[in-house]
Amino acid sequence: MQAVEVGRGLDALFKPRSIAIFGASDDVSKIGGRPLQFLQKYGYAGCIYPINRKAGRVQSLTAYANLADLPEAPELAVVAVPPAGVLEAVQACAQRGVKAVVILSAGFSEMGEEGSRLQMQIGDVARATGMRIVGPNCLGAVGVPDRSIATFSVALEGAFPDTGTVGIVSQSGNLGSFTLRLAGERGLGISRMLTTGNECDVDIADAVASLAVDPGTSVILCCMETCRDGAKLRQAMALAREAGKPLVVLKVGVSEAGSEAAASHTGALACSDAVFDAVLREGGAVRVPSIEQLLEVGHALSVVGPARLPTGHRVAVLTASGGFGVLLADAASAQGLALPKLRAETQQRILSIVPFAAPSNPVDMTAQVSSRPEVLAQVLDAVARDDSCDALILQSASAFHVPRLRDVYLGALAQVRKDHPSRLIVLCARAPQDVRVQLTAMGFPVVEGIDAACATLSALMRHGAGRAIGASSPTAAAIECAPLAPEAFTTEASAKGVLAEAGLPVPLEVIVGSRDEALAAGRRLSFPLVLKIVSPDIPHKTEVGGVFVGVRSEAQLAEEYDSLLARVAQNAPQARITGVLVAQMVQGGVELILGTTKDPVFGPMVMVGLGGIFAEILKDVALQPAPVDEAQATAMLRSLKAFPLLDGARGRPKADLQAAAQAIVALSRFAVRHAQSVAEIDINPLVVLDQGRGAYALDALLVPAPPAEKAKP
Amino acid sequence: MQAVEVGRGLDALFKPRSIAIFGASDDVSKIGGRPLQFLQKYGYAGCIYPINRKAGRVQSLTAYANLADLPEAPELAVVAVPPAGVLEAVQACAQRGVKAVVILSAGFSEMGEEGSRLQMQIGDVARATGMRIVGPNCLGAVGVPDRSIATFSVALEGAFPDTGTVGIVSQSGNLGSFTLRLAGERGLGISRMLTTGNECDVDIADAVASLAVDPGTSVILCCMETCRDGAKLRQAMALAREAGKPLVVLKVGVSEAGSEAAASHTGALACSDAVFDAVLREGGAVRVPSIEQLLEVGHALSVVGPARLPTGHRVAVLTASGGFGVLLADAASAQGLALPKLRAETQQRILSIVPFAAPSNPVDMTAQVSSRPEVLAQVLDAVARDDSCDALILQSASAFHVPRLRDVYLGALAQVRKDHPSRLIVLCARAPQDVRVQLTAMGFPVVEGIDAACATLSALMRHGAGRAIGASSPTAAAIECAPLAPEAFTTEASAKGVLAEAGLPVPLEVIVGSRDEALAAGRRLSFPLVLKIVSPDIPHKTEVGGVFVGVRSEAQLAEEYDSLLARVAQNAPQARITGVLVAQMVQGGVELILGTTKDPVFGPMVMVGLGGIFAEILKDVALQPAPVDEAQATAMLRSLKAFPLLDGARGRPKADLQAAAQAIVALSRFAVRHAQSVAEIDINPLVVLDQGRGAYALDALLVPAPPAEKAKP
Repeated sequence: MQAVEVGRGLDALFKPRSIAIFGASDDVSKIGGRPLQFLQKYGYAGCIYPINRKAGRVQSLTAYANLADLPEAPELAVVAVPPAGVLEAVQACAQRGVKAVVILSAGFSEMGEEGSRLQMQIGDVARATGMRIVGPNCLGAVGVPDRSIATFSVALEGAFPDTGTVGIVSQSGNLGSFTLRLAGERGLGISRMLTTGNECDVDIADAVASLAVDPGTSVILCCMETCRDGAKLRQAMALAREAGKPLVVLKVGVSEAGSEAAASHTGALACSDAVFDAVLREGGAVRVPSIEQLLEVGHALSVVGPARLPTGHRVAVLTASGGFGVLLADAASAQGLALPKLRAETQQRILSIVPFAAPSNPVDMTAQVSSRPEVLAQVLDAVARDDSCDALILQSASAFHVPRLRDVYLGALAQVRKDHPSRLIVLCARAPQDVRVQLTAMGFPVVEGIDAACATLSALMRHGAGRAIGASSPTAAAIECAPLAPEAFTTEASAKGVLAEAGLPVPLEVIVGSRDEALAAGRRLSFPLVLKIVSPDIPHKTEVGGVFVGVRSEAQLAEEYDSLLARVAQNAPQARITGVLVAQMVQGGVELILGTTKDPVFGPMVMVGLGGIFAEILKDVALQPAPVDEAQATAMLRSLKAFPLLDGARGRPKADLQAAAQAIVALSRFAVRHAQSVAEIDINPLVVLDQGRGAYALDALLVPAPPAEKAKP
Repeated sequence: MQAVEVGRGLDALFKPRSIAIFGASDDVSKIGGRPLQFLQKYGYAGCIYPINRKAGRVQSLTAYANLADLPEAPELAVVAVPPAGVLEAVQACAQRGVKAVVILSAGFSEMGEEGSRLQMQIGDVARATGMRIVGPNCLGAVGVPDRSIATFSVALEGAFPDTGTVGIVSQSGNLGSFTLRLAGERGLGISRMLTTGNECDVDIADAVASLAVDPGTSVILCCMETCRDGAKLRQAMALAREAGKPLVVLKVGVSEAGSEAAASHTGALACSDAVFDAVLREGGAVRVPSIEQLLEVGHALSVVGPARLPTGHRVAVLTASGGFGVLLADAASAQGLALPKLRAETQQRILSIVPFAAPSNPVDMTAQVSSRPEVLAQVLDAVARDDSCDALILQSASAFHVPRLRDVYLGALAQVRKDHPSRLIVLCARAPQDVRVQLTAMGFPVVEGIDAACATLSALMRHGAGRAIGASSPTAAAIECAPLAPEAFTTEASAKGVLAEAGLPVPLEVIVGSRDEALAAGRRLSFPLVLKIVSPDIPHKTEVGGVFVGVRSEAQLAEEYDSLLARVAQNAPQARITGVLVAQMVQGGVELILGTTKDPVFGPMVMVGLGGIFAEILKDVALQPAPVDEAQATAMLRSLKAFPLLDGARGRPKADLQAAAQAIVALSRFAVRHAQSVAEIDINPLVVLDQGRGAYALDALLVPAPPAEKAKP
């Protein structure tokens, strides 16, 4: 139901024709005084209605004792009264037909049980009436073009942001406010800012969506701590992607300590960062590790535009200093960028311009750049012509501060922009603000730090590559089959049975009830065989002697059948024995572990890793939202550090990657179809044989979803 | 010989009583005009002697046509003439008794063969006369307290650095100059700056040493691209360590691309970064990844002083914002810091001060900090009392910019400094310059960025831990034994023979020449046995059928002895057969690969990793300069990602760590003793059995040093 409504009705937050302020105050240090001050100081053009029990005048405007007294229904209401009065204010708003409410007041779910209850009642008003509510405990909203200000953020104390196309959304008010302030210092133009706080109604997905549909926004910066509705977030990401707007995400709560702190801070479930990462990747978001990078990448994307985003990751570095060249080469490599040697003809051309240059990559143009103005333009042109690189970084620590050099650099850059309009060139440089404005107007992002410049370029390239691949195949709707019969969960054999039906390859095997049946089975299958006890009461078969591997003849089969049953009878006398599994033995190959889990927010996830210590000790696993297609499954396998083991490392034969990928696909689809009844699936091992010989699930475990969950509609 | 002379005679670079400038010019855009301008502008108190063919006056000072015309021998000479005139100037200096020369001119080894020859001749003057020469192609030296300026660095154009105790040395002139400029912007006080450029005489080790012995320097910042003399660098590091001065190193050329660029830029060998890292670690240097971190860590170390450096890595984070708390928790975790939960009594105390605080760690003091001044001091005190953390980070994005809050914060910090004088507290904050000065005067480092603050604290803690361990046992002098006999290099058996004598455990084994001898050997050893062909002509025994594993009886021994010889005779008919190795079979255990290499600059290095894919594919190896002691060897093993496999992971028995460590020690000592004749040793595998059962080298290969190297004195 919510599916089509993400971000609905939020325009009133950013361009309301009128704003009422509950708790309006003359004291500008109070949260009810600040928005009123900002609205007047920065010239909001709509009507402002202070609401204050005493009525009279507040900050020289006519104040009203009640919302009912206003001459019209305001489009937006800001609530800055003590917590006990918030519900009443919100109800009054709903009654009067207010479109959106921003609750700045704190004292709700962050204060314990009672606050949570009150917050729930407030959210119910939104759900019942369709009026949108932001907060409580948030830093509100700012619509920059319309100077609509529903916040008390200190970021607005010095100056109002310049209008631009970068939008900022954040769950944490402080992070959002700090981002806004840094954006101003960084010279970024802003379209909208929205912080969602405790999210009684409007959540981070709504916030992203409200920017995705805003014609004034071209880049979305998002600080996220948690997610309460995975489906909504996915829809919001899809909206941004369809609109061609990069979504840059700083997800905090990455570490264990951070994730616990985020859970305690937001009151939401602590999501696994690996799950978040997979979901963000799938949704085409550009993930960054710090606020600084959020701004740098936002700056660069707003300057570069989508047309100049490369899809490769090869960079040419140009400096006038060998030392800086080395530093940049290190920093670029650390960011996963490649520095290929430039083509021979390019190197020759560079040497013909500067005989003692280092022409390979990084290109050291030497101090000649300072003394011979033509050098820079010519070298830039030579490198820009070279298709062995996808982008250029031009570094200078001081050129833009020296008037003579500044003009040389600006002239050369104007020329290269004219001759190579679609080339991405990032400047790693310190420059005065006026020069930065000129450079960005020419479409060159300017980043000061060396690490920061390389990280920014890397993010641009990842985004470019992601765009080129296009949206991943839309997540298939979870077509819920009839719930699995409870028997499916009881034994390995039953689990493998239902999984085999779903297309997961398992060895030829049969359950037998007697020695004669075992011998008959042995005749149909081919030796060697494996015997395993089948019992709903024996979870760990090996521990009770319930497995025998390597039966090589009929005689041995008869003998081992009997002794297996005898061992189990002795070790687990109470266990109900359903039979004995006679299975063809799979020999050789590489062992994978394959599984699915159900994330409480984002639903079924599929996971694969190499067996043994790789997954357990080295944490070398790949995770992806289910279902996946064969290309995604193959990419998961290739992303493993131990992938070379599947790919013929150390003289091994190559493994049957296709069969492994198809098994992942089949399992992931099964997990989605049975999401309501299955909590978890473990395949350990999936043996992958040599190329062309297939892959087989040798053991399987289905864990049922808890009854409460099954009951959900 | 050079051993006792590192850094000798460099004081004249920083506090000369007189300075002559070859190529002194009126044109301040020239490298011969700039130093003269700086010396006068910034008030150097000694005598300045411009030298210029035209004599007369330069920049209003009396100029001289020749050095010989000067009324005295200057202590320092700056050479800024075209390359062709440099040798003559240097020779004149040596003749006149100048103590030190700085050659700013470029056009030497960076320009090819001819330049290299000229540079070598210049260096020969230093070696012949003892006069020290810096450069050529460098940005010279600055002695800040004495305003001695032998540089044309643009960093001095705006202002002269404040005098302080931070020294800067760099091979790259540009990186050194940029560091100096950033240091000024960052408010760091500087003692000395020295860039070494092409290093015809004074190298980076001399530069480090000159600061280690300078009473005015307390922290040394070093930008390094390469090292030409490993022994000298180690001595310089030891000098810094003995003087109790932290040495913070930005080593560039980490990546393959960067390392190649550094080699091309400096003309020196491209050193393996892993070797550099091991050498820096051993020498007690603090390695940082960027110029920004170089300055932050330099700032923090100069503010904190050695007494407040913690040895642990547990940090408590305090914020007034949940969002920032989460961000800091992530950043701290990413830097390897631990955020333990605070003690229950600490948490209770915090809750008694701020009822809705998040008291665990990160501590969210909530917005109460702004409205109730006593909160901060009380919470700081509660956390500072808690010994579950080794340091504190207090974060505030804006408090120091709001006068009322600034005073609250400064007051609380003054109190905690008084009550907890030895507590390390890092401020992650933005603050005006005057407030920063107050904070640093109280001993609080102030770092703006969140990642930067955590990285800085991590560097401080690593340095503290390193200091606590103390200097590693001084590298034993390489006592060269008589060169190994050539036979030692011919076969596995001969290699194992010499290594066993050196203390490396090998299985019981014997070389036999006949079936009877084999049977006799079999009777002495215990079954099962391994047979291996012994031949100087068969490097890969398995490939010719020259190995049999698992001989379990005398009868089988006789049979397999014959068929082994027959197989080898058929597959390698030309090979000379020295015998057959009969060895006790070592069963079970974990396989390590163990080896040594000889770095051209730093000498023998010892390396260990787990066998198979771990070392080869996952690059999971530990490297350390040889020799190592048992504690170091154990630390190497523990540093492996796959260490849990040796430590009882997944229900395995624990491996015999002590035996493995002792084998590493023995091999590392052997490598040092035979450094001149042995280039490389490979032990593959070293099988480590269960605890108490030992470790055994099952195969060994000695690679001889090339003859040229052996011939060296």
